Amino acid sequence: MGTAEGRAVRVRVEDLSRYCVAMLAKAGVPVPEAEIATLNLVEADLRGVESHGVVRFQNYFERLLAGGTNPRPAMRIVRQTRTTAVLDGDNGLGHLVGVKAMELAMEKAADGDCAFVAVRNSNHYGAAAYYTEMAARRDMIGISFTIGAINHMTPWGGAEAMLGNNPFSFAFPRREAAPIVLDMACSNAARGKIIVAAKDGTPIPGDWASGPDGMPTTDPVEALKGFVLPLGGPKGYALTLAVGLLSTMLSGAAFGSEVGHMYENVGTAQDVGHLFGVLPIASFEDLETYHRRIEAAVHDLTGVRRSPGVERIYMPGEREHLAARRHAAEGIPLNRVTFEELRALGGAHGVELAASGG
Amino acid sequence: MGTAEGRAVRVRVEDLSRYCVAMLAKAGVPVPEAEIATLNLVEADLRGVESHGVVRFQNYFERLLAGGTNPRPAMRIVRQTRTTAVLDGDNGLGHLVGVKAMELAMEKAADGDCAFVAVRNSNHYGAAAYYTEMAARRDMIGISFTIGAINHMTPWGGAEAMLGNNPFSFAFPRREAAPIVLDMACSNAARGKIIVAAKDGTPIPGDWASGPDGMPTTDPVEALKGFVLPLGGPKGYALTLAVGLLSTMLSGAAFGSEVGHMYENVGTAQDVGHLFGVLPIASFEDLETYHRRIEAAVHDLTGVRRSPGVERIYMPGEREHLAARRHAAEGIPLNRVTFEELRALGGAHGVELAASGG
Repeated sequence: MGTAEGRAVRVRVEDLSRYCVAMLAKAGVPVPEAEIATLNLVEADLRGVESHGVVRFQNYFERLLAGGTNPRPAMRIVRQTRTTAVLDGDNGLGHLVGVKAMELAMEKAADGDCAFVAVRNSNHYGAAAYYTEMAARRDMIGISFTIGAINHMTPWGGAEAMLGNNPFSFAFPRREAAPIVLDMACSNAARGKIIVAAKDGTPIPGDWASGPDGMPTTDPVEALKGFVLPLGGPKGYALTLAVGLLSTMLSGAAFGSEVGHMYENVGTAQDVGHLFGVLPIASFEDLETYHRRIEAAVHDLTGVRRSPGVERIYMPGEREHLAARRHAAEGIPLNRVTFEELRALGGAHGVELAASGG
Repeated sequence: MGTAEGRAVRVRVEDLSRYCVAMLAKAGVPVPEAEIATLNLVEADLRGVESHGVVRFQNYFERLLAGGTNPRPAMRIVRQTRTTAVLDGDNGLGHLVGVKAMELAMEKAADGDCAFVAVRNSNHYGAAAYYTEMAARRDMIGISFTIGAINHMTPWGGAEAMLGNNPFSFAFPRREAAPIVLDMACSNAARGKIIVAAKDGTPIPGDWASGPDGMPTTDPVEALKGFVLPLGGPKGYALTLAVGLLSTMLSGAAFGSEVGHMYENVGTAQDVGHLFGVLPIASFEDLETYHRRIEAAVHDLTGVRRSPGVERIYMPGEREHLAARRHAAEGIPLNRVTFEELRALGGAHGVELAASGG
């Protein structure tokens, strides 16, 4: 990350946010919705989760312009019980649909029930942690599953992409600190890292990818013709599949061969599926006890003897929150290529993006 | 598995079940409960999941005799809403407590709600899939999390065991076939495999374990003084932690430094925690549509082009169901050492275990 930050252009949160809102509005998204989506999108960059932030903005924007994503969705609940719902996102931005779905889940859990909301006709929703942290702020354990919007993984033993990199997240509230947040995709490495290795001409570790025949390879060029490998081999494949089925089989969203490609056919709806869940802590445990115990757990985990060279044990999600605090003060470090792309895109639509001059 | 089956002693399901029920009764478990626990226990061996079957029987039995596990638990719901509950297992056999908790979750979901039951004061509950498949048989997605009952994993960057190998399971119903079942622990390899390598004097892969300093090692002897490594590195650590927190923070069960050791101190209660959840499919999707789509998904996944040397693509859980069918007919192949241990244990209590002579 040090190197990336070193080569980066600093952009102030307000400037990046203003840019996103203005551009989404140009693409036909009403300003209040554009503001909700922007909060979500910029949060990823603020946390240093570059892969899920504005680096994808051009694609979101192009999809909106090309009709692949609906700028003014009429989302609706198509089925529900007291504690469950299916939300049809009407092909809106995933960031908007996801927020709506998690809000609905929390509403259904207001009396202490657990609640789950399945979603169809959505799009790539950015970072999964954004939604689970919404729940954590309300003293609920937040749960989120989604498909990856591009098939890059094979069934175990196969040589044909049939699964996305299906990310999921759990968030556990803390009172005086950022929540404990798992937010992970199911491959050992992001495909972006393989692209970088191919450009650099360096071999990749043997568990990152397989070639077109489905056999593991250390050649990044072969890997890009092939597939990403799941973490832990067949275990990770089963996990990817489970996240995929949870995200699609309850809502009717696309799965497997039905899944389109986010970056190709930008004019075609993707029918991305998600599943959101909340477990209100007070229904299970006294809040005081929960918070005392979670702090004791953090104390246990971060206080262990460390491996040589390790200066500090972080809780999952902690680095991202530290980065967010830093970036809020110093500006968000954007990759120069991303910055120039955004600026050019903005220029074509009369929207400026200023560097903070840092 | 071929080799293990080759060296195995065949035991008929009825004989193994009769043995378990009689022995549990000797340890003070009432026969109806002994029968429930035995069904659960023997199912793992029937499926060839040897690691979670009667190989652990001696420990379960010793814990019952030593007072570390309560043979006649008075389980009770200590807190509940319409859709949530906390079950206190009164230190009963995990196999019994788990069944009770999953039944309670399914009962709460009978009207179409999602439901979650958190459990405390339980014990090692065997194979997680047993519980999630109970739900799948009722057209619900079954969810189960548990702690591993022994701490073998460090926080990422640490050199002190603070986490179990925390298994979890999801099961998805199918109509004409066994459910799709994810059932996995969070390490790359089971510790048992490292024990085997140490006995054989062969090096282990670099991502299986770390030595006492928390640094990855290929020396199985060092590894046994150290820790198992999570799949996918820090991702797997975060996953292990999330499963651990889900299993303990809602119910008040032991976590981290509070966790005892299943095989040491057999006279001390472990306070193992679990979390069970169910999502009734019909609340989200027409059952007909769900079943049509899940079969289409299976068709997609198993019909892909295969890697060289791969004869068939299996769905997660499918191999185990095929093994169960085979073993029901041919007898369960028990490792000879396990068989002799069980027979000796039985002999000391006047309970026979017959080999099927296969």
